[in-house]
Amino acid sequence: MNDTNKPGLEICLSPALLHLHDTVGKIVVIIDVFRATSTIAAAIDNGAECVIPVATVAECIKTGAAIKNSITAGERDGKIAPGLQHGNSPSEYPSSFVSGKTLVLTTTNGTRLLHMIKNADTIITGAFLNISAVCEYLIQQNKSVVLGCASWKDKFNMEDTLFAGAVADRLQDHFHHNDDSVRAAIHLHRSSGGKDYINFLRDSAHYKRLSAYGLEADMEYCASTDLHPVVPVLKDGALVSSTRIMTEAVMPLL
Amino acid sequence: MNDTNKPGLEICLSPALLHLHDTVGKIVVIIDVFRATSTIAAAIDNGAECVIPVATVAECIKTGAAIKNSITAGERDGKIAPGLQHGNSPSEYPSSFVSGKTLVLTTTNGTRLLHMIKNADTIITGAFLNISAVCEYLIQQNKSVVLGCASWKDKFNMEDTLFAGAVADRLQDHFHHNDDSVRAAIHLHRSSGGKDYINFLRDSAHYKRLSAYGLEADMEYCASTDLHPVVPVLKDGALVSSTRIMTEAVMPLL
Repeated sequence: MNDTNKPGLEICLSPALLHLHDTVGKIVVIIDVFRATSTIAAAIDNGAECVIPVATVAECIKTGAAIKNSITAGERDGKIAPGLQHGNSPSEYPSSFVSGKTLVLTTTNGTRLLHMIKNADTIITGAFLNISAVCEYLIQQNKSVVLGCASWKDKFNMEDTLFAGAVADRLQDHFHHNDDSVRAAIHLHRSSGGKDYINFLRDSAHYKRLSAYGLEADMEYCASTDLHPVVPVLKDGALVSSTRIMTEAVMPLL
Repeated sequence: MNDTNKPGLEICLSPALLHLHDTVGKIVVIIDVFRATSTIAAAIDNGAECVIPVATVAECIKTGAAIKNSITAGERDGKIAPGLQHGNSPSEYPSSFVSGKTLVLTTTNGTRLLHMIKNADTIITGAFLNISAVCEYLIQQNKSVVLGCASWKDKFNMEDTLFAGAVADRLQDHFHHNDDSVRAAIHLHRSSGGKDYINFLRDSAHYKRLSAYGLEADMEYCASTDLHPVVPVLKDGALVSSTRIMTEAVMPLL
């Protein structure tokens, strides 16, 4: 991983450390495994037109009201936030429900990090549910990458770091780095055994917090790999499937 | 590690995350393995009167000039800083040289973190060179603990996190926690095998940086355990041996 001709790889372990990372011209992967970026992968894979991430419940209601065929969603303390229609669970968005619709999703940590990124080449979202699609995309793009853990209120967390380590472990041959966060995340990923992620994540602060709301099945789903092989890419404030962006970009040439 | 009757344990992975930790009334362990807190352990074990940590070279010169029998020390870019007498290496302070003297030491990362801590019960310093003494002290004190990694310019680093994980691993039975930083640091420590620390740390940003200055032997020394079994405790701006503080406290009763 030390061939400096290759694009670079960094991991930002918390939004509070983002100032230490130069994101200009790079691809930034927003990671919020429990559960925003898992839900985004599920909704887009299941045919949502796009997902608009917003920071507050008020903004969610306002944005949803302005868009036809939209769903407003978000939770506070494990319950659907007052004024919104749906929650943060990826299982709430099967294609029978979400197909063709715009999901306006309020998430605290993921959205905050996303809005903090300035001048990146591209912002995408990643989670175990779309890990292989994300890795293939990053290898294909051949640009330097910052894996950005949304964390929990700026606190380092296990699930986002584990995912970042899993990605870094897969990207070893294609990227270079000299970043201790990458080294530690890869060690963490290898400690997990690299397979039974949910078993490893049961001993984490977020698992314990969300278990108190009875969300164990949700977290087990979020720790599953490749059930939703899409790459959500931020375009004009909305996350859309990368294949759609590529099709649109190619279309005028045809 | 989940018995909440026991004192709590947290790890602060970077000074930039310190605001997330409540240090009031707790014992804070400042960790700067390469090399400030290693040098502090060596100097105090070798009989230094005390070590005064200061932030800048100018402050080091000024403080040194005001104290009889003092040594001013500090490096910039691997060399003794202009105006100071000695470097940051623990091997520079054998008892034949440092005994009875006051070491005024300028270190960027460790001192900065130390000065950021407000209202802690006690501040001590830790490194592999005094790991068992530090662990025994923490168990004996029976108060909540924050292990504070000085890191490198706020960036997460391997050596300080590895040390914090080694301490957390040893303290498991005596403290409770629900902190993902503690979990990850323990995993990191176990990944290292828990013995040949220098071999593990050769793949780290700081090792690579200091190797360029030819400091490999120094780092190998810093990765050795228990060569200097002291607990440096901050008292009135200076680090002194915990045994001396205890003796002084007990003396008036005799």
